[in-house]
Amino acid sequence: MIDVYYAPTPNGIKIPIALEELGVPYRLIPVNLSANEQKRPEFLKINPNGRIPAIVDPDGPDGPDGEPVSVFESGAILQYLAEKFGGLLPKPARERIRAFEYLYFQIGGVGPMFGQAGWFMRHPEKMPAGIERYQAESRRLTAVLEARLQESPWLAGDEYSIADIAHFGWLRSAGYAGVKLEDFPAVKAWVERIAQRPAVKRALG
Amino acid sequence: MIDVYYAPTPNGIKIPIALEELGVPYRLIPVNLSANEQKRPEFLKINPNGRIPAIVDPDGPDGPDGEPVSVFESGAILQYLAEKFGGLLPKPARERIRAFEYLYFQIGGVGPMFGQAGWFMRHPEKMPAGIERYQAESRRLTAVLEARLQESPWLAGDEYSIADIAHFGWLRSAGYAGVKLEDFPAVKAWVERIAQRPAVKRALG
Repeated sequence: MIDVYYAPTPNGIKIPIALEELGVPYRLIPVNLSANEQKRPEFLKINPNGRIPAIVDPDGPDGPDGEPVSVFESGAILQYLAEKFGGLLPKPARERIRAFEYLYFQIGGVGPMFGQAGWFMRHPEKMPAGIERYQAESRRLTAVLEARLQESPWLAGDEYSIADIAHFGWLRSAGYAGVKLEDFPAVKAWVERIAQRPAVKRALG
Repeated sequence: MIDVYYAPTPNGIKIPIALEELGVPYRLIPVNLSANEQKRPEFLKINPNGRIPAIVDPDGPDGPDGEPVSVFESGAILQYLAEKFGGLLPKPARERIRAFEYLYFQIGGVGPMFGQAGWFMRHPEKMPAGIERYQAESRRLTAVLEARLQESPWLAGDEYSIADIAHFGWLRSAGYAGVKLEDFPAVKAWVERIAQRPAVKRALG
C-alpha cells in the first residue's frame, strides 16, 4: 500500500492515475496547501522542497523485504513506479527514449510555463509583458505536442506511457494558461481519450 | 562518436561534461542561437522543440549494430548516457532514486526559475513583482540544495552523478539569477569541487 501525499493539482493527479493504471494499491494522504501543510517539518523529511506530490513505498525499491523508501518530484515518482511495477513505459529502447524526452519536456517546459502563465494572468498587478511571454510560450509548447500527436497516437509512439500521464493534468486545464484546445485538435482528442480511460476516471473519482 | 548539438549555455554544457566523465568520444556541433539555427528544419527533425542540447548516437541504444538514435531534452540525454554507458548513476536503488529526484528538481525547478529570474532582471521594462518572484524562488531552491549538500557530499548521496552535472551550469552562474553563492557555503564549495574535476575542465575547454 503506497502512501501518496496528494492535492488535486496538475502535478498531484499524475500519481493516482499512474497507480490506477498499474493496478498498485495506494492510499491518498491529503495535503492542505492553503494551510501550508507541505511546509511542515514531518513532510519536509519526505520532500525537502516542500511540494506535493511525494510517495512513501513501505516495501522499498527492492521488493517486500526492503525498508520503506520515499520519492519526491512527480517525474521521479512516475519513473520509479513505471520501473518498479513494469508498466507505462514502452519496452523497445527507441520508444522508451521518446517517453523520457516528452516526460522531461513536460517537467521542464509545459509544467513551469503553464504555471507562470496562470500566475501572471491572475496577478492583481497587470504585467502585459509577463502575460504575453508565458501565454506565447505555453502555446508554442502545445504546438510541439500537436505536431507529435498528429503523427503518433501517444507521446512515446504507439504506447500510452508516463509521458502522456505527466501532460494530461496541465493540458486538460489548458485554459488556465490561456491556451485554447480548439486550436490544437490532436491534443484535444488525446486529452479526451485519456479522460475516458477507466483508470483515469477512478483516479479523478 | 556521438554528435552533440551544442551551445555553451547552462543546459548545453551538461552534455560534454557527462561525456567527458564517461570517457565517451563525441563531436560538438555548434548551434548558433543568435542566428536561430535551432529552429531550422533539419534540426527540428532531431528536436521538434527547437532547443539545444540534442544528440545523435550513430550506434543507437542497442549497441554498435543498431540504427542511429537522436535524443533531446538535457535530462533525457543525461539519463540515456548514464544508462547506456553505465556511469554517473549510483548502483544502490536508494541512491539512484535520490539522483533522479534531484535531476527532476533541476529540470523542473532550478532551470526554469533561474532562467526567468535572469530574464526579468534584464528586461528593459522593469517589472519588480516579476523580478522579486523569480529571485525569491531561485534563492529558495538554492537553500534546498544547500541543506542537501550540508548533509551529503553529492546530491544523490555519496556519489557524484548526473544530478550534480545537471545543476552545475546554473549554480556556477547563480549571479545571473540574483543568487549570491556566499549565502550558500555548501553549494559554493560543491560548485568549486565540480569545476576542479579534470573532465569538467576538458569539457569547458
